[in-house]
Amino acid sequence: MAAAPSLLILHPRLTHIATTLCPFSVHRSRLPFLFDHSRYHSCSTSPFATSDVTETPRAGRSNSVSSPPVDYAQKIDVNPPKGTRDFPPEEMRLRNWLFHNFRQVSELFGFEEVDYPVLESEALYIRKAGEEIKDQLYCFEDKGNRRVALRPELTPSLARLVIQKGKSVPLPIKWFAIGQCWRYERMTRGRRREHYQWNMDIIGVPDATGEAELISSIVTFFKKIGITAKDVGFKISSRKVLQEVLNLYSVPENSFAKACIIIDKMGKIPMEEIKKELRSVELSNDAIEDLLQVLSIKSLTELEEKLGGSGEAVRDLKQLFSLAEKFGYSEWIQFDASVVRGLAYYTGIVFEGFDREGKLRAICGGGRYDYLLSTFGGDDIPACGFGFGDAVIIELLKERQLLPEVPLEVENIVCSLDPDLQGVAATVATRLRGKGQRVDLVLENKPLKWVFKRAARINAQRLILVGRSEWEKGMVNVKILSTGEQHQVNLDDLQ
Amino acid sequence: MAAAPSLLILHPRLTHIATTLCPFSVHRSRLPFLFDHSRYHSCSTSPFATSDVTETPRAGRSNSVSSPPVDYAQKIDVNPPKGTRDFPPEEMRLRNWLFHNFRQVSELFGFEEVDYPVLESEALYIRKAGEEIKDQLYCFEDKGNRRVALRPELTPSLARLVIQKGKSVPLPIKWFAIGQCWRYERMTRGRRREHYQWNMDIIGVPDATGEAELISSIVTFFKKIGITAKDVGFKISSRKVLQEVLNLYSVPENSFAKACIIIDKMGKIPMEEIKKELRSVELSNDAIEDLLQVLSIKSLTELEEKLGGSGEAVRDLKQLFSLAEKFGYSEWIQFDASVVRGLAYYTGIVFEGFDREGKLRAICGGGRYDYLLSTFGGDDIPACGFGFGDAVIIELLKERQLLPEVPLEVENIVCSLDPDLQGVAATVATRLRGKGQRVDLVLENKPLKWVFKRAARINAQRLILVGRSEWEKGMVNVKILSTGEQHQVNLDDLQ
Repeated sequence: MAAAPSLLILHPRLTHIATTLCPFSVHRSRLPFLFDHSRYHSCSTSPFATSDVTETPRAGRSNSVSSPPVDYAQKIDVNPPKGTRDFPPEEMRLRNWLFHNFRQVSELFGFEEVDYPVLESEALYIRKAGEEIKDQLYCFEDKGNRRVALRPELTPSLARLVIQKGKSVPLPIKWFAIGQCWRYERMTRGRRREHYQWNMDIIGVPDATGEAELISSIVTFFKKIGITAKDVGFKISSRKVLQEVLNLYSVPENSFAKACIIIDKMGKIPMEEIKKELRSVELSNDAIEDLLQVLSIKSLTELEEKLGGSGEAVRDLKQLFSLAEKFGYSEWIQFDASVVRGLAYYTGIVFEGFDREGKLRAICGGGRYDYLLSTFGGDDIPACGFGFGDAVIIELLKERQLLPEVPLEVENIVCSLDPDLQGVAATVATRLRGKGQRVDLVLENKPLKWVFKRAARINAQRLILVGRSEWEKGMVNVKILSTGEQHQVNLDDLQ
Repeated sequence: MAAAPSLLILHPRLTHIATTLCPFSVHRSRLPFLFDHSRYHSCSTSPFATSDVTETPRAGRSNSVSSPPVDYAQKIDVNPPKGTRDFPPEEMRLRNWLFHNFRQVSELFGFEEVDYPVLESEALYIRKAGEEIKDQLYCFEDKGNRRVALRPELTPSLARLVIQKGKSVPLPIKWFAIGQCWRYERMTRGRRREHYQWNMDIIGVPDATGEAELISSIVTFFKKIGITAKDVGFKISSRKVLQEVLNLYSVPENSFAKACIIIDKMGKIPMEEIKKELRSVELSNDAIEDLLQVLSIKSLTELEEKLGGSGEAVRDLKQLFSLAEKFGYSEWIQFDASVVRGLAYYTGIVFEGFDREGKLRAICGGGRYDYLLSTFGGDDIPACGFGFGDAVIIELLKERQLLPEVPLEVENIVCSLDPDLQGVAATVATRLRGKGQRVDLVLENKPLKWVFKRAARINAQRLILVGRSEWEKGMVNVKILSTGEQHQVNLDDLQ
C-alpha cells in the first residue's frame, strides 16, 4: 500500500502519546484499523521522533477503553477536491480582511447584503450565446433527476430573487453579495474551480448614474486597500456601440449577443478565427471590417465622429465620463471600444478593471443588463452591476507588495501552574471573557516554556498565571508580555 | 401557457416605464421574447396598474436600440431550488447578526476561523455505521466521474485539514468554522436541504477540559443573545458508558458505533425496532436489557453505583461536572445517559443543547472523537468539538420573542433637486463616504416626497439636498430627520 507523503507526518507534540501507547499494544492490536498504522505509530522508527518530551502523559488516553468506532471504506485523500481550497487560519484571516473591505465599501454606498443558494437550477444559466461560463457550468443531476448547477455567477440568482420579490421591494434596489461561484473545466490550466465574487447591483436605474456609482464603489475599494490609479484602470465602452454598427448592416437581432461573445475572445484566439465565427452568425464581411475598425477606437471624440452624436452609445458614455469627474475618479477610467465582456446579457455600458502593468487577467467587470429580468419572465426593469473575484486582486496585492499582515491576536493567555488549579484558571478565563477580553485558556498542564511559546504565537499581550500561593490570597499573576512587567491582581479587579 | 403567480407582478414603480414603452410598440414587437410579455406589460390591463405616476419618465429606455440579447431555453422558476433558501436583505441581516455572535464568541475563546470546500470527496463521509447523515448525503458524480458530495457536516473536512497540516500547526488546535452543510432527503418533511453550522473544535487535548471549554463557549453564546438556563439546558453523557456495558457482554468492537447509532434513534422509532436492530449487531438480549437500564440513568451518583468508580466514563464526567462549576454553568447541564448523538465517530463525552420546553429538536450537539484522525490515516490525536445549526436557534428565538430587530441603517441620503446637479450630489456623496459616512445617493430625478419615503425606509439620520441657489454659494442643505432641524453647510465643512 503506497502512502501519500502527507499521511506520513507524525506530529512531534504527539510522540509522547505514541510512545506511551506502544506498551498497550494489546489494546492497539485489537483495533479494527483498515490500514497499517504501525508505519506511523511505531515507537522507534518515526523520522519525526524528538527527544524533548518533557511532560508526563496524562491519564486520558493510554488506558482508554474506546476503540475507533468508524469504518471507512477507503483511506482519505488529505487534499481538498481538485480545484478547490481549504482556508486554514492564515488564509481565512486574509479572506475575512478582503470580504470585510468589500462589505464596508458596499455599506458606505448604502447597499444591502443578500445571498442566494450556491446550488441553483441549471435552467438559470442555459443561454444560447456561446459563453465560456455556460460551457464550464458545474452542473449535474440530483437524486430527484433535477438538473442543477453550482452557481457560476451571482447575477441570474439576483434577477430571480428580484422577480420573486416583485413589488414588495421598492426601487431602486441596491444589493451586494459575496458568494462562492463554481466552474468545471476538463482541462487542467492550474485554474481553480471555485472562487468568491463580490457583486454590487442597482436595479431600477436606467441612467449611467448607476454605472458611475458602481465604478465609484470599486475605486473606493481600491483606494481603501492601497491600490492607486497608477496600478489599476478601468476600460469602458458600451455594447450599444456594436449594436449601432450592426444596425447599419441589418444584422439579425439574435446575432447580437453571439457577436459580443465572439468579440470578447479577441486576443485569445486568432483574428481569422474571430472573423470566421462572426461570419457564422450572419455578419457580412463589410460589417466585420467596420466592426473591427470601430473596436479599435480608444477615444470618445473619435467614437462620436464615427457614430454621430445622437445615438445612445455616445450619450451614455459621455454622461458616465462627465459623472466620473464629479465622483473624482477620472484618472482611473478610459474609453476603449474593444471592451465587450463575456456575458451574454449585457446591453449597454460595460467596463473592466485592469492591471496597468498588463500582467494579470481582468480584476473585475460589469455593465448594464437591462433585459435580463424581462427575458427571465419578470418586469422590464433596467439594471446594472459588477462582479469582482477574490483571485486576481490577491495576485495584484502580492505583485505590489500590498498584501496586509493579518496576525492572530488573542489578548490574553491564562494558565494554571498546578493541575489542581485548572478550574480556577477556567474561572479567571470566564471572568475576562465576560469583560469582552479574548482569552486562550491553556487546557492542559504545560511547562512555562511552552506557555510563553504559545503566547508569542497568538500575539498575546498578557499572560495570566494562576499559582497556588497567590490564589490562596485570591490573587493571580499578570504579566505584560511586551515589557515583562509583572504584578499580582485580585481576581475581582482583573479587567 | 400557464404563468406562475409570482411572474405576474408588475412593479408599481415601473408602471411609468411600461406605459412609456407601449407607444414604442414597433420596437417592442421586434424583441425576440420567448414568452408572451404583453400579459405583463399591456398598457391598460395590468391588475397592478396604479395611478400615482408622478414622475416624468427619463430618456434612458424608451428609445433604446438594445434588444434582449439572451435566449433562454425555458422560463425560469423564481423560487430557489427545493429545500434551499435565498437571503433577501432582511434575512441576510439576521444571518449576519447570528454569525457575528458565533464569531465573536469563538474569538473570545481564542479560536481561529477556518473554512473548507463546500464540495468534498464522497469518501470522507462513507462510514459503515448506519448513520442518517450518510443515508442523506447530497452526493453525485462530477463530469470527471469523481464521486463528490456537498458536505453534510464540517468535522471530516476539519480532520482532513488537520492531517494535511501535520506538524506545521502546534497543538492544541482551536478552530471554528461557520459553513453551509447539505443533505438530500427524498421524502418531503418540510426540512431544508441546506443549513449553516457553527463548529468549534479542539484538537490535541485528551482531558474533559476540552469539552468543558466548548460547552462554556456555547453557554456564553446563549447568554449573549438573551437565552438563559431556564430556556435551554445541556444533556451530557459519555459513549464510554455504553462501551463499558458492552465490554461486560463481550460484544464485538465493531458493533459499538452501530449500537450507538441505533440507540440514538430511541424515541424516534418503536422500542421493539430498536431491540431488533441491536440484536442484528450481535448484542445479546441480556446485553440489551442491561444497556437500556443504564441508558435510563439520570444521575452521576447512580451511574457510579452501576459502573463503579474506576472507569473512564465516570471519571471524565465527574471532571466535566466539576469544571462546569468553575466555569459557572452548572445550572445549564445535567447528566443523561440516554444521550449518545447520531454521528459514528464519537468516542467519549457527548452532549446536546435542548429546549427546556421540549418543543424543538436538539439545538446543538457535540462530543469527543478521539479516533477520527487516526481512522482517516492521520496521527492518533485526541479531539472534541460541536456543531450548532442556524435553524433551531432561530426557531427558539422566535418562540421566546428574542429575535432581534436588525434594521437597515444608512446614515445619509443625498439628493439633487435639479437633474443638472446630479454630478454635484455625486461629489457630496463621495466627500461623505470618504469620511466613513454611509450614503444612499439618489441616482434619478425624484420628487421630494419619494426621497423622504426612501429616507424613512433606510433609517437615514440626515437628508442632504443639493439645490441650485445654495450650491452657487458652495453650500448644501442638511436636514436632521429626527428633529426636522435644517441648516446650510459649506461642502468643505460637511462631516
